[in-house]
Amino acid sequence: MNVLLKDIDIITADSGIPFIKKGNIGICGDRIAFVRGSGEVPEGFKADRIIDGRHRLAMPGLVNAHTHCAMTLMRNMSDDLPLEEWLFDRIFPVEAKLTPENVYWGTLLGIIEMVKSGTTAFADMYLHMDEVARAVVESGIRANLCRNPIKYENGKKCEPCDGFEYYRRWNGSANGRIRVYVEVHSTYLYTEESLKDAAQLAKEYGTGIHIHLLETAKEREESIAKYGMDSVEICEKCGIFDVPVLAAHCVHLSEEDVEILKAREVNVVHNPTSNLKLGSGIADIPRLIERGISVSLGTDGASSNNNLNMFEEVHLAALIHKGVNRDPRLVSAEQAVMMATANGSKAIGFGGETGCIKEGLKADLIILDTDKPHFYPMNDPISAVVYAAQGADVDTVIVDGSIIMEGREFKTVDEERVKFEVAEISKSI
Amino acid sequence: MNVLLKDIDIITADSGIPFIKKGNIGICGDRIAFVRGSGEVPEGFKADRIIDGRHRLAMPGLVNAHTHCAMTLMRNMSDDLPLEEWLFDRIFPVEAKLTPENVYWGTLLGIIEMVKSGTTAFADMYLHMDEVARAVVESGIRANLCRNPIKYENGKKCEPCDGFEYYRRWNGSANGRIRVYVEVHSTYLYTEESLKDAAQLAKEYGTGIHIHLLETAKEREESIAKYGMDSVEICEKCGIFDVPVLAAHCVHLSEEDVEILKAREVNVVHNPTSNLKLGSGIADIPRLIERGISVSLGTDGASSNNNLNMFEEVHLAALIHKGVNRDPRLVSAEQAVMMATANGSKAIGFGGETGCIKEGLKADLIILDTDKPHFYPMNDPISAVVYAAQGADVDTVIVDGSIIMEGREFKTVDEERVKFEVAEISKSI
Repeated sequence: MNVLLKDIDIITADSGIPFIKKGNIGICGDRIAFVRGSGEVPEGFKADRIIDGRHRLAMPGLVNAHTHCAMTLMRNMSDDLPLEEWLFDRIFPVEAKLTPENVYWGTLLGIIEMVKSGTTAFADMYLHMDEVARAVVESGIRANLCRNPIKYENGKKCEPCDGFEYYRRWNGSANGRIRVYVEVHSTYLYTEESLKDAAQLAKEYGTGIHIHLLETAKEREESIAKYGMDSVEICEKCGIFDVPVLAAHCVHLSEEDVEILKAREVNVVHNPTSNLKLGSGIADIPRLIERGISVSLGTDGASSNNNLNMFEEVHLAALIHKGVNRDPRLVSAEQAVMMATANGSKAIGFGGETGCIKEGLKADLIILDTDKPHFYPMNDPISAVVYAAQGADVDTVIVDGSIIMEGREFKTVDEERVKFEVAEISKSI
Repeated sequence: MNVLLKDIDIITADSGIPFIKKGNIGICGDRIAFVRGSGEVPEGFKADRIIDGRHRLAMPGLVNAHTHCAMTLMRNMSDDLPLEEWLFDRIFPVEAKLTPENVYWGTLLGIIEMVKSGTTAFADMYLHMDEVARAVVESGIRANLCRNPIKYENGKKCEPCDGFEYYRRWNGSANGRIRVYVEVHSTYLYTEESLKDAAQLAKEYGTGIHIHLLETAKEREESIAKYGMDSVEICEKCGIFDVPVLAAHCVHLSEEDVEILKAREVNVVHNPTSNLKLGSGIADIPRLIERGISVSLGTDGASSNNNLNMFEEVHLAALIHKGVNRDPRLVSAEQAVMMATANGSKAIGFGGETGCIKEGLKADLIILDTDKPHFYPMNDPISAVVYAAQGADVDTVIVDGSIIMEGREFKTVDEERVKFEVAEISKSI
């Protein structure tokens, strides 16, 4: 289908032209056919569908670069507690009971919530990942999913492992909407041997790794006790950084760690809400940006957030570092937009394919309804999106050229059914 | 009119029973006639209007305890700049040009935005305050407005002053929806003499004072240079704290200042977004709460925020102190709700009249639509409101017993007209 977004304000997130007033975007099939200035539409382009850009702002879809989507099932279940008590006493016992079906519905709920607040792609790490893939395929969203097929018992590798059957089943499926990485939960749940095995597996398959890295001060201490070096250093030693890496959190980095992340082009995912809520601390994002490290954004799971609304992460990322460092020039509105779009896309393995509004790229974009009091007067649209906008301002969501939400109505999944199923599940867990 | 909110979940913000599942709220005229448990309605109560509580959550209206409402006119006009450059080079030149009519429309826009995100009362400090009062009367919202009639020229009091005509005109008007305080912008724009005069005026009129207090480290330094003591101490010396005080910011307090604020029962207004965005720092709210100081919340003006959405302030207040102090138990969800409701109400001079859902109080309350993916599963409703909710979830707003918004449609003011007028004004300023 050919779609024309006509006379619409555009935040491109493309380095050259950040903003186009009343421009036109053409979509052919799954790709952006053209992005033009006011009044310009290429000769011969015939639109099957025209979306009127009056009071509308188009921007690239947001990328939630680190979450555990089905943890929506544990939303508001346990708050304001120390991390250990929260995780070990409250979350783990519930997770132990989750069935594949539970994870399917929890993931669908999370996807609906994400799409309704402007997310077009996410990176997930969780249980029962076949169910997560099923939800991704059905909903039409884009995702980076991860799994590690190598199991150990009493420190010994279990043979045979499944030869990364998950990768073969899902990587590149759904017209390329799914990409599969190797899961390395964290260095504290791994050993030197299993870190090396994971790195080797990722190399063999030519894919990347999704990992939690230095989320807490305790992780840092324990890593030094266990490995004689911190988590970044043991990753470096074991070859983890030889492949593309999506490293969540990175709150407690030493100067040496920053050097390693920079040299190895590791993609850092900043999770401001989760890090604040669990009392983990505040990642030194201005320092990472200043060093040229690519920083993206994530919500983490809904049980430590308690939503999957990327507009809140954008907002926080642009605010907290100014306050903590008492410098209002840090993390500009434009940088916050790049973190949530182009950088996120690159981090989850879709760099060069999505992440900005540009001719030839996959058509992953969102349209905001700006006819709301908090958008008047608009003045600077990039500031408006970062500081004033709400997730609920998202009117239309296009992924891979398909309109999956319009007028805030979900087109691919029955939202009422999903809410019903989740409410039922929550009675029994 | 008698209104019945039937079978509705209720966050009361009343100390005794924080939450009622599927309760009933009766409203008679401007007051809450009863709050009852499931299935209970007092005999003889005849409702003219019944609001169905299915998928709805009632809570007290939020109180925006410090703003400059008409600064919506300068929204997104100037961001990511040092405070001095922002204020002196960008904001002041525009403010100098504002007409009373501009302020009227800017205030109306801000009121619409506030109501649409759940605010039922606010405290305002700005120019052309008669226009602000006019907008408050017409919109149906509740407000604390301030002004200082005493003028000085070359350090000498101008006679005659108007004898606080503004107070006589507006205090208690609109069925008591307006309360008038004395404005003391800050100690840095005042002198020892004018601080004493303001305190004396407030005492004479039996009213309170609205002041900016220790927003920046620079204010602290300059106060010591000018007065030989910091802003809190000079206020104490000049009698400012002899009357009820609404003190915005309080970011840079010494231990002695905290003792004074505690002893004099000063109401502190925490403005997390504005303090972060301008790089002013982070107020030590956990310390103030621990000392039993009443802390409320405010958005500050839209030009340093850039919206007037109190749900964002609630969210931030519950998050940032956990992260900065690395303790997830600080500022609980319940405390954040109290800050935004009961404490706010007390701070702006309506304590005992509004701020919680309780028999006999004025009916200022909001109804959230909880049939949204980010409210599934609900689990803890107080956590849901603080960590997961959005301003756009507010469906219905009742102030002084009148429904001023329903189904997100404004009932008292023509929203389209206001947006149009503000868009026109923004072309010329």
